[in-house]
Amino acid sequence: MQDYHDATHRSPVTLDPENWDEFRDRAHAMVDKAVDKMMAAQEERVWSPLPERLKTALQHDLANAGSGASVTDEAIESLLPHGVGNTHPRFFGWVHGAGTPANLVADIAAASMNANAGGRDHAAIHVERQLSNWVREIFRFPQSSSGLVVSGTSMATLIALKTARDAGLGFENRVRGVDERKLVGYTSAEAHACNARAFDIIGLGSGALRRVPCDADFRMDIAALKSMIESDRSEGFEPSIVIGTAGTVNTGAIDPLADLADLCTQQDLWFHVDGAFGAAGILSERLAPRLAGIERADSLAFDFHKWLQVNYDAGFVLIRNADLHRQAFSDRPDYLSGVERGLAAANPWPVEFGPELSRGFRALKVWAHLMEFGKERLGALITYNCEQVDYLANRIDQHVSLERLAPTETSICCFRYRRDGLSDDDLDSLNQEIVIRLQEEGIAAPSWTMIKGRLVIRVNITNHRTRFSDIDRLLDAIEEIAPEAAAALDM
Amino acid sequence: MQDYHDATHRSPVTLDPENWDEFRDRAHAMVDKAVDKMMAAQEERVWSPLPERLKTALQHDLANAGSGASVTDEAIESLLPHGVGNTHPRFFGWVHGAGTPANLVADIAAASMNANAGGRDHAAIHVERQLSNWVREIFRFPQSSSGLVVSGTSMATLIALKTARDAGLGFENRVRGVDERKLVGYTSAEAHACNARAFDIIGLGSGALRRVPCDADFRMDIAALKSMIESDRSEGFEPSIVIGTAGTVNTGAIDPLADLADLCTQQDLWFHVDGAFGAAGILSERLAPRLAGIERADSLAFDFHKWLQVNYDAGFVLIRNADLHRQAFSDRPDYLSGVERGLAAANPWPVEFGPELSRGFRALKVWAHLMEFGKERLGALITYNCEQVDYLANRIDQHVSLERLAPTETSICCFRYRRDGLSDDDLDSLNQEIVIRLQEEGIAAPSWTMIKGRLVIRVNITNHRTRFSDIDRLLDAIEEIAPEAAAALDM
Ligand SMILES: Cc1ncc(COP(=O)(O)O)c(C=O)c1O
Ligand SMILES: Cc1ncc(COP(=O)(O)O)c(C=O)c1O
Repeated sequence: MQDYHDATHRSPVTLDPENWDEFRDRAHAMVDKAVDKMMAAQEERVWSPLPERLKTALQHDLANAGSGASVTDEAIESLLPHGVGNTHPRFFGWVHGAGTPANLVADIAAASMNANAGGRDHAAIHVERQLSNWVREIFRFPQSSSGLVVSGTSMATLIALKTARDAGLGFENRVRGVDERKLVGYTSAEAHACNARAFDIIGLGSGALRRVPCDADFRMDIAALKSMIESDRSEGFEPSIVIGTAGTVNTGAIDPLADLADLCTQQDLWFHVDGAFGAAGILSERLAPRLAGIERADSLAFDFHKWLQVNYDAGFVLIRNADLHRQAFSDRPDYLSGVERGLAAANPWPVEFGPELSRGFRALKVWAHLMEFGKERLGALITYNCEQVDYLANRIDQHVSLERLAPTETSICCFRYRRDGLSDDDLDSLNQEIVIRLQEEGIAAPSWTMIKGRLVIRVNITNHRTRFSDIDRLLDAIEEIAPEAAAALDM
Repeated sequence: MQDYHDATHRSPVTLDPENWDEFRDRAHAMVDKAVDKMMAAQEERVWSPLPERLKTALQHDLANAGSGASVTDEAIESLLPHGVGNTHPRFFGWVHGAGTPANLVADIAAASMNANAGGRDHAAIHVERQLSNWVREIFRFPQSSSGLVVSGTSMATLIALKTARDAGLGFENRVRGVDERKLVGYTSAEAHACNARAFDIIGLGSGALRRVPCDADFRMDIAALKSMIESDRSEGFEPSIVIGTAGTVNTGAIDPLADLADLCTQQDLWFHVDGAFGAAGILSERLAPRLAGIERADSLAFDFHKWLQVNYDAGFVLIRNADLHRQAFSDRPDYLSGVERGLAAANPWPVEFGPELSRGFRALKVWAHLMEFGKERLGALITYNCEQVDYLANRIDQHVSLERLAPTETSICCFRYRRDGLSDDDLDSLNQEIVIRLQEEGIAAPSWTMIKGRLVIRVNITNHRTRFSDIDRLLDAIEEIAPEAAAALDM
């Protein structure tokens, strides 16, 4: 064993660079590529799918991997132009944030620290606590609430609803299993699929999440909700959870949160808010009043990577009652037991508030983002996007071949290209073909969705790079492409 | 609205830099700080808790945030020395990987792409598929298996056990809820808490995960398992899942995986392997034979951020039957429906295989890591750590005041400082105090755990920077500190 008893710090298998100067150059070189790419955000095509050549190159034989730094970095660089497109000002698809160059700086620092933020006493834990303080303040939640940075709203929802489940059924169900099949929840017909997914995962079943009809503006119909709750009670179910949406994924509608809060207080129900992108509106003078009631939620799930422009991924769950939150997840084994000194201090640990033990230092980029840009600037940006959506809606309303199918309350506008003589089904195909062609040609990337049973072009603007001229460009392109699309479909 | 109708690409609220040259310098400056920090990995104290001064500085008023780049970067830099300590060669606590400088390069690229890897057709999706191919090959899983990059083994376990639950109870329970309270699983008394947590989260209840006693080497006792299964059956339960551990968190023991695989085949049970750190041993000539049977698992959860040295966070779930995996999570809403062209192509999407919709491009750093270092080098490193553990165990066995309490099968060695005349309870306190003092003085960071009811010093070596001399240093420090610790405790 003496052979291994090295005096130096180098071994044949270390993963540290052989030569640190070369490594420094290597990192700087990648920064230059990264900055070049980010500078060109407005110029590139919106979307350039990975070419077949690069797909084939990816099929590298594992046995031959281990090819060192330069081959690897070249391969990485070849991928840079082939992102989702969300960094581009004319990415209008789904609800994606555009991210910031500044985020790179925080990521560089985080990579050098390589912290595991599941627990223990170190900087990452304290940064996340401070971030949680800020989030509490933003949403006017009490000091006794708790928060956790997560990958996104889906995970935040899972954590919030698991807490609601345990608070509703009693914490002994953590051990015994969900034997109570009568617990039911309610959300609108327009709610995001992640809510039903969470019901499924936590064992209540997606069927236990009732879908409440919406009014003409795609907001949950409170009268319908009340009568569904009553009829469930009369059938022996136990209504327990109401999920309001602050910004629905299809049309961007905000449910009447204050009314929902009232109802939940009166009937002692857990009030959860899915604020994936819309909750960020709390920072916008224009949207904040529409979000009144959000400060009374029992739990709130939202994203930093959507309208708040932090890079992927970053979401947050905020829970009014920290004790319930901790009781739903804490389960400290002996070897992680709490102490007041040494590395194992700084209790409670994040692992006690969610399903993850190991977790990276995601809080750094979020905290740095708020620190650098401040809440006013982020709020102004949201307001600006809303005005762009107004502008788009206005132009559509004046346009002879375009028809708007939903109100524009936040960041989303749904509309349809139409041509006389085409059936509704034909129009569905035509509008989908228009969207695909806009994407394929790299001009713009809206998505589509179904509104009142019809396929519509869906434009979402949660992007600090989008300009009014980008909207003009989109509409011009639709006019240009529509006839080609129709021809391709033999219409 | 004309006011907003800007011709240029700059608006008052953009989050892009005002001056790109300055931004480039800013990113390079942070790279220099990061590289300086990483170069000093061996020199620094193992752990330097965040000083009170910096904790106070963190308590920045949100109203005053928005202070721009330089204030933010200074604040970030002040955090750099205050990581967990796992980048240091004498971090021996818990099971943390040390990470690599190279990871920084991949993170720089990923930050500039800002991809959401939940779905759609772009580079991140194809990289993750290739990574999954490599993982399949490493563990000799069939082409028909499926994989997903996740934050860590806790999340991987949740996904695997949710799939097992649905496969066992029938997929209609996704809608109906878990009404079947008879499904039970088995794992060893030494299994990680994340397994019971997953049982709790998915609604089966942690009590439905039976704890099978271990043999003297801390491996699951197969005879005991068999008789527990029989007696559960006779009581009307439905044994469904067996979880073997490849590398237990306390002692690093590997359960008899081939025997478990045989049993699961015979009795038609779902065989899950928690290989958080130990599964990586498949790349080591020394450990691979011990892992025989892992290739027959129905599901496998393991981490890249532990013994494989990828930066936090990065884990993986591998599931033998991709169809079952997809059926347990897929729930595509209309607006995400699958197509063959445009941005929404590249089906199936990752969102159909786990609870997350939005998710960052975590696969890049993992893929780049394998690409740069190759599996041989990573395997050699694991073997090298095992030899260091041998060396430590040997020195302990020869040491008059140290006593080893468990075999050393993989990366972990558990031992106890002892002194005549002290009770077992006194020795518990003394050993904990020794560990805390080693951490506080920045010399080394082992952790402690309970073995056979006694507190032991636990040294885990999953670190490519650790040298044999670091082990000597640890033992010298224990000898030096023990009398001080005893004095402080009035012993
Ligand atoms: C209203 C709503 N809820 C939840 C989600 C899911 O959020 P995430 O993708 O961060 O998991 C989305 C995503 O678009 C959403 O729009
Ligand atoms: C055996 C075992 N399983 C599971 C886990 C949890 O893994 P993670 O922290 O990646 O969630 C650990 C962590 O140390 C472990 O050692």
